[in-house]
Amino acid sequence: MAAMGGGGGGKDGGGGMAAQAGRLGVVASVAFNLAALAFYLRRRYFGGDAAAAAARKAEAEVAPSSGKPPVTKDSIINLDHGDPTMYEAFWRGGAGERATIVIPGWQTMSYFSDVGSLCWFLEPGFEREVRRLHRLVGNAVADGYHVLVGTGSTQLFQAALYALSPPGPSAPMSVVSPAPYYSSYPAVTDFLKSGLYRWAGDAKMFDGDTYVELVCSPSNPDGGIREAVLKSGDGVAVHDLAYYWPQYTPITSAAAHDIMLFTVSKCTGHAGTRLGWVHTNFVPNHLKFEQILAQCDWFFWHRWALVKDRAVAQKMSKFIELNTIGVSKDSQLRAAKILKAITDGYDRAPAAAVAGDDDDDSSSRLFHFARRKMVSRWAKLRAAVAASGIFTLPDELPGHCTFANETVSAYPPFAWLRCGKEGVDDLEGYLRERKIISRGGGKFGADGRVVRISMLDTDEAFAIFVDRLAAMN
Amino acid sequence: MAAMGGGGGGKDGGGGMAAQAGRLGVVASVAFNLAALAFYLRRRYFGGDAAAAAARKAEAEVAPSSGKPPVTKDSIINLDHGDPTMYEAFWRGGAGERATIVIPGWQTMSYFSDVGSLCWFLEPGFEREVRRLHRLVGNAVADGYHVLVGTGSTQLFQAALYALSPPGPSAPMSVVSPAPYYSSYPAVTDFLKSGLYRWAGDAKMFDGDTYVELVCSPSNPDGGIREAVLKSGDGVAVHDLAYYWPQYTPITSAAAHDIMLFTVSKCTGHAGTRLGWVHTNFVPNHLKFEQILAQCDWFFWHRWALVKDRAVAQKMSKFIELNTIGVSKDSQLRAAKILKAITDGYDRAPAAAVAGDDDDDSSSRLFHFARRKMVSRWAKLRAAVAASGIFTLPDELPGHCTFANETVSAYPPFAWLRCGKEGVDDLEGYLRERKIISRGGGKFGADGRVVRISMLDTDEAFAIFVDRLAAMN
Repeated sequence: MAAMGGGGGGKDGGGGMAAQAGRLGVVASVAFNLAALAFYLRRRYFGGDAAAAAARKAEAEVAPSSGKPPVTKDSIINLDHGDPTMYEAFWRGGAGERATIVIPGWQTMSYFSDVGSLCWFLEPGFEREVRRLHRLVGNAVADGYHVLVGTGSTQLFQAALYALSPPGPSAPMSVVSPAPYYSSYPAVTDFLKSGLYRWAGDAKMFDGDTYVELVCSPSNPDGGIREAVLKSGDGVAVHDLAYYWPQYTPITSAAAHDIMLFTVSKCTGHAGTRLGWVHTNFVPNHLKFEQILAQCDWFFWHRWALVKDRAVAQKMSKFIELNTIGVSKDSQLRAAKILKAITDGYDRAPAAAVAGDDDDDSSSRLFHFARRKMVSRWAKLRAAVAASGIFTLPDELPGHCTFANETVSAYPPFAWLRCGKEGVDDLEGYLRERKIISRGGGKFGADGRVVRISMLDTDEAFAIFVDRLAAMN
Repeated sequence: MAAMGGGGGGKDGGGGMAAQAGRLGVVASVAFNLAALAFYLRRRYFGGDAAAAAARKAEAEVAPSSGKPPVTKDSIINLDHGDPTMYEAFWRGGAGERATIVIPGWQTMSYFSDVGSLCWFLEPGFEREVRRLHRLVGNAVADGYHVLVGTGSTQLFQAALYALSPPGPSAPMSVVSPAPYYSSYPAVTDFLKSGLYRWAGDAKMFDGDTYVELVCSPSNPDGGIREAVLKSGDGVAVHDLAYYWPQYTPITSAAAHDIMLFTVSKCTGHAGTRLGWVHTNFVPNHLKFEQILAQCDWFFWHRWALVKDRAVAQKMSKFIELNTIGVSKDSQLRAAKILKAITDGYDRAPAAAVAGDDDDDSSSRLFHFARRKMVSRWAKLRAAVAASGIFTLPDELPGHCTFANETVSAYPPFAWLRCGKEGVDDLEGYLRERKIISRGGGKFGADGRVVRISMLDTDEAFAIFVDRLAAMN
């Protein structure tokens, strides 16, 4: 869930991704005109027939989008969303070949993936690769947990709120998170004005008994390691572990919380695939056995009688059934292939054996590729901040990583950049005037002198960003 | 949206798809045991190494699910959901080869499909094929309409409710549909207890000014052609045209309503792909220009000033951003390829030219394949009903189809089966005792002597169903 999202969609007043899209439209438009000019020139000098044939072929193949247009030195640089295009370079290598998927027209037509399963829309191959990857990385316990799949972890976050809400007529359950919190939490919680739950702000200021605390660790936006701050009453913590992967932070232990959310986009870079997953084995106090039975009919009853620990998983699955009648199987097949390519890569070249070796071939080892990128980008960012003199960043957090088997620093996927310059009270606006789109601290429950910057964009966009930053003073 | 869904998830008290999955679990378990036995015997007689190698290869390929297990003469036959597995036979033919998609590991990684577009997560290739298919079939006007994509039309239905709800504090907008209505409408409307909208039942009994009327035509469950029954005040009709395709009903004109929902699953049979789309060009009275501007920030403002007719489309797009941060690109690429294969098939062998010719090769013409199936199945069903003597079905509805250029009957995807036998007040229960799972009339706002039966399952399941039905008296 800590992926990205509109942020400004709710009370924050911004226009979200659509507004960003609007801004970028001008860039896209310029890019389109350049492309059209190039096409014209090519046609003029290399013959119209070949160009027309190429165009026809492209149309016949239903050419996919390539995301945002390429940047130039004068472009608006959009680092608002955590669009993980940094990873494309890895997947264009050998691992990408192994992750290629072929889906014949007759495959996976049914709504059902496994009719006998609690999560009837979960592709068995995807579940297998999820469990295999967690065993490799050691970042979360999967054995003994139910695994559910969602259309991104955003959908699973809403499913968790639905599943954890007390049944019957009662006041909406409070949803909280310690500030600075992920900017989409308030908007996604409140956009439908649900009577089941409502956003209640900073967990550190909260004083009630029935709540869900969202624990995003490492934290979006600031990269910090978090634990639940509330412990009282009937409250439940939902752990958003979107960034608990070894390229971003030391893996210090296998997480074993009640409800843990993950997303493909920040693990592998495939945001367009829209897949998240959750581990849970949880039954909160208010989900009494009789209530679970009351939701089930005669046949289901017999199954449930044996498996009452599946209460939350069953309600989350129900949410996804009502919201989208399951989750794209095509995406699950593709994600399974992608996760498999990652784990297979480490089967060939184990992680710890070559840890710290900067010369090794990282073409088949995703986490090593991504960590190297993050180390390099953070070094450049810290150098730019030092050159500028008006900014500060959070301190580096080192720890022993069980995956790499060495002590490493955290290199978060977002930079939480603060400005100390006199008169700059709206850092987001200050950067926007300099053609850098970031997300202002106000959307995270923080002040306006801080912004969140994505560290996962393309090399080209990142390079232009740090150059501009270094020149500010 | 008129696809399928839990139905019983809300006030109806059933367990929805998960409960069905539970029921089918027993079938699946038996099937698994048989498969295991077959595997054992094969291994025993054909050598263990080859079998083990085949199993290893299957695992290496991340074998996809195949939906529900095959049925046998004594199986429980589940015709509750409209699982469109009937179509698999078509896609296993030549058209299926042409619909095969290959997605390399590096493709479509970004969140964005077209940053300059209102629906920034809509793959341009998918939109192009949607428009091309509608031009071929003539069932809906696409020119001049915005096209949005959703995770099934279920998500788009919720997006429409969100987009059409009056802003600011006011009583929830009423959501109505004339009974019998699609059983999922109440549950999907109410499951989050939204303060924006609430289910208000049968449109024919409704007496208010601010409402959304869901017009499902041809109707799920009974196949009838519907028009909006309410015309007053600030009400808005949302047209659910999931079944307005030539295999199910004569195409009498190109629909041109304010908001029209479609779904891939009932057009092509690819339910597992979870894709729907909507056409709209609508601005309701209560979405005033100033309110739209208030939602947008400085840059977006300039774009919106030129395009105020995009109000509903923009709010629907926002819903999908908040709900799932867009829609699977893998599914969009696949759906584009599938729709393209259909339209290309008719480019090769036009529809009207060979209309009514039962001997023509329908291997490349989807609607002809599916219509032939529907004609055959309805003939068998009517014969079984006549043989039984205790059931009735709606009358056949003929009309001139502009696509086929001839007068044809409607062959709906669901049979709305009524029982006149003394003492059978719960037809769903009566059939369940005879191992046929249907969906009872109560879930559609009708009485218990009627049920909805899917006509889109496999040939094998359908054949067993009609045999059993014919024997009831």
